[in-house]
Order: sequence, then C-alpha cells, then structure tokens
Amino acid sequence: MIRSATPADIPTITRLVRALAEYEKLSHEVVLREEDLHQHLFGPRPYAEVVLAEEGAQVVGMALFFHNYSTFLGKPGLYLEDLFVLPEFRGHGHGKQLLKHLAKLAVERDCGRFEWAVLDWNTPAIEFYKSLGAVPMHDWTVFRVAGDALQRLARPT
Amino acid sequence: MIRSATPADIPTITRLVRALAEYEKLSHEVVLREEDLHQHLFGPRPYAEVVLAEEGAQVVGMALFFHNYSTFLGKPGLYLEDLFVLPEFRGHGHGKQLLKHLAKLAVERDCGRFEWAVLDWNTPAIEFYKSLGAVPMHDWTVFRVAGDALQRLARPT
Repeated sequence: MIRSATPADIPTITRLVRALAEYEKLSHEVVLREEDLHQHLFGPRPYAEVVLAEEGAQVVGMALFFHNYSTFLGKPGLYLEDLFVLPEFRGHGHGKQLLKHLAKLAVERDCGRFEWAVLDWNTPAIEFYKSLGAVPMHDWTVFRVAGDALQRLARPT
Repeated sequence: MIRSATPADIPTITRLVRALAEYEKLSHEVVLREEDLHQHLFGPRPYAEVVLAEEGAQVVGMALFFHNYSTFLGKPGLYLEDLFVLPEFRGHGHGKQLLKHLAKLAVERDCGRFEWAVLDWNTPAIEFYKSLGAVPMHDWTVFRVAGDALQRLARPT
C-alpha cells in the first residue's frame, strides 16, 4: 500500500531519514530539522515529494523524489533522493513497490528517465536495482561544492 | 557578462545543447525540440533555468540548472545539468564566471550544495572543477531506468 505523504507525516519522514543515514554510515551528515522539511515539502516552493509504504496502519518505508531535467531528451526526469524500508520490514516487497510506483509516476508525467545514486559498497541494493532494469552510469562522477568552498566560489573576484 | 535567458534565447540554447552533445560524443542521444524546451523553461511548471554568458552582443556560453534536495541537510541544492562555452571563446573566463554566478545564486537561495556530473575522460574539466574547490563523489554511482525498462517497471505486477 503506497500513499502520498501529508504534513502529518513529517515526524515519521524525519525518523526514516535518520534511520537511512544510520544504515549508510552517514549519520554525522544529518542536520535535517522538521520545520525545514515541512517548508520544503509543503511550502509555497516545494522542492521534493514523498510517498510512503504502509503495512497495516504502520509506515514502514518511504521514497523522497524530485524532478531533474535532461536537455538531451528535452524532458524532465524523476530523481529518487532517498529510498528506505525499515530493516524489520524488508523482504516484503515494499522497496520494489515504491520503485514501481515512482516509475509509474515518471511515465504519467512524461519523464524520460528515472534515476538515483547508490553507494558503491551497497551490493545488495545494486543487485536489486539491476534486477529491475536499472543501468549504472559508470562514466560519470558527480562533483560537489559545499560549505566554505561554496562561499568562496560565490564571492566576486 | 552573465544574464538570465528569455524565451527569445530558445534557438540559441538549443544550438548550444547540440554543440555540447557533440563535444561529449553523445550527439546520438539528443532529441531536444525547441517547443519542448520553451515549455520546460518558461511554461507553467518550469523544470530548469538558464543563464547565458555574453561577449559583446554574442552569446558564447550557457549554464542550465535546477534545484535538487538533500534530506540530510534539510536544504535544496543547486544542480548544474549543462555547462558549455563555445570552443572559440574558451580561456576567456566564461566558464568560471558562469560557475561563480551559480554559486552566488545557490548561496542567495540558501542551498546546501552545488553539484554537477562530469564524464570521467574529461580531464581538463575535472582539473578545472577541482581548482574551484569541487570534490568528486567517488563513492556513489547513478543508476538509470529509461525507455522500455522504465515502461516495464511502471507496469503493475
């Protein structure tokens, strides 16, 4: 059972983001605050959308996504930022149903691609994604500027 | 001189996208149509924004970007999809000015990160980005579902 998140789900989504970061060994990077997430999902300029997987009445997984854009295709794409299913509910098909739901949304919204990034050590996830027809973009590396380096780059010379 | 693109720039932007694809040896992937780009940049649901670099009255470079979202930071990010300067105008600082302009926008819009993807064989670009403080995210690989695989994944089971 997949449904769109509402403002009432913000505390649950925040907990799932923290649980995902723990799994990815990246908890030290999480500074997310509930009020910011509320603003960014449901404010006047939404930056992302969330769908939730439920088992009975319990939220057991989530997918947070937004649209990117391909100039080569001349179409938007759907980018999955976070996919997470609580460890005790894995193997029940929630991850696959979340991905299928987003693929359906991508087709309905005329997106040319559905993409997400995976940590290279996460072999079970990689095998799972390949089994669904996803292809690794091995030729590309993402570069990032953040923190002080971003402030420096933003300064006029 | 950097300025925001207007609908009158659509033919120029389309030409620059094709020139970029040629440089990336990916021309076969380009199916962009001007009417789609117009809709996606200036329609009711914009998916991306474009800034242009000018020398005299001529457009010599462009950057096309949109916002992504980091749940760990609880902030939007700025994602640069395409950066291109016409070969005969390289070395004049246009690429750097375009990147600095976007970094400034990212800071003004309270973005936590400024990111883009680079083809691994593009050593001159990689060195240039590193010199500006950008860090390669070597631990991550992007997975993509497109075309028939996307249609299949979207189908209910």
